[in-house]
Amino acid sequence: MLGHREAALLYFEDLTPGTRFTHGPVTVTADAIVAFAEEFDPMPFHLDAAAGEESLLGGLAASGWHSCCLLMRMICDGFLLETAGMGSPGIEEVRWLKPVRPGDALTMHASVTEARPSRSRRDMGLVKFEFALVNQDGQRVTVMSNLVMFARRPAGEAA
Amino acid sequence: MLGHREAALLYFEDLTPGTRFTHGPVTVTADAIVAFAEEFDPMPFHLDAAAGEESLLGGLAASGWHSCCLLMRMICDGFLLETAGMGSPGIEEVRWLKPVRPGDALTMHASVTEARPSRSRRDMGLVKFEFALVNQDGQRVTVMSNLVMFARRPAGEAA
Repeated sequence: MLGHREAALLYFEDLTPGTRFTHGPVTVTADAIVAFAEEFDPMPFHLDAAAGEESLLGGLAASGWHSCCLLMRMICDGFLLETAGMGSPGIEEVRWLKPVRPGDALTMHASVTEARPSRSRRDMGLVKFEFALVNQDGQRVTVMSNLVMFARRPAGEAA
Repeated sequence: MLGHREAALLYFEDLTPGTRFTHGPVTVTADAIVAFAEEFDPMPFHLDAAAGEESLLGGLAASGWHSCCLLMRMICDGFLLETAGMGSPGIEEVRWLKPVRPGDALTMHASVTEARPSRSRRDMGLVKFEFALVNQDGQRVTVMSNLVMFARRPAGEAA
């Protein structure tokens, strides 16, 4: 396996405000919803259709954390694995706007809203993204904003 | 399985500012770190010790999302499954302060910081929590704040 720096196609300098990426759709199964919930979020409305119907969710629905993890995987597959990404200091905000149901086909949208060089590290920059998961009906089910750290393009490397 | 309303011990009225819960420790394995990353966050520094050492993380470390999911599970096991919890509208903030390493033994701390009745639903209240995952050295590795919705105690039910 190549280290991600060797394989990187995109550096900080490439991720200017307005840059967009998309990936998907990826379909979510009932089995995956229940398996995730059993491991990480075993609230009744994520495990059982009847409990889901009695809840605010109105039917079996994925854990919000499952939505976030599916979004993260689509971010990786959609662009992040092809960048000099160095990780993230955290999450600025997530809103779970709509339930994610068995059979939903989710598409990831990413948009760069800000980019600035790091004050502490000359080899790094910080890029703020807004991410959305959109279902087959065009509804945004999960939105997230956060900062991601990227290496700056090494001197002498062609853009 | 009982619905969570039938089994609930704690309602909105019980979760006043200053209320605290703790749970753990739970030990994280290298296998679990790699398995989670392969499924949801396959960045090299979450999959491979050498790539981790070359990264800002300084060694193999769990995906921040994995930390969040472990925290969620400890929140469930520590108190949430014994409440009339109705879910959450999202995450206000997460900060990944320190790497989570293979062998780390993590403890969850929860603290209620605000509680208010819902303006739109008389049967519900909103409770703001600050959560922390603390490792065996007493370091806070992940902190999170978010709102959780709880049913209000039904009229006539004893506190």
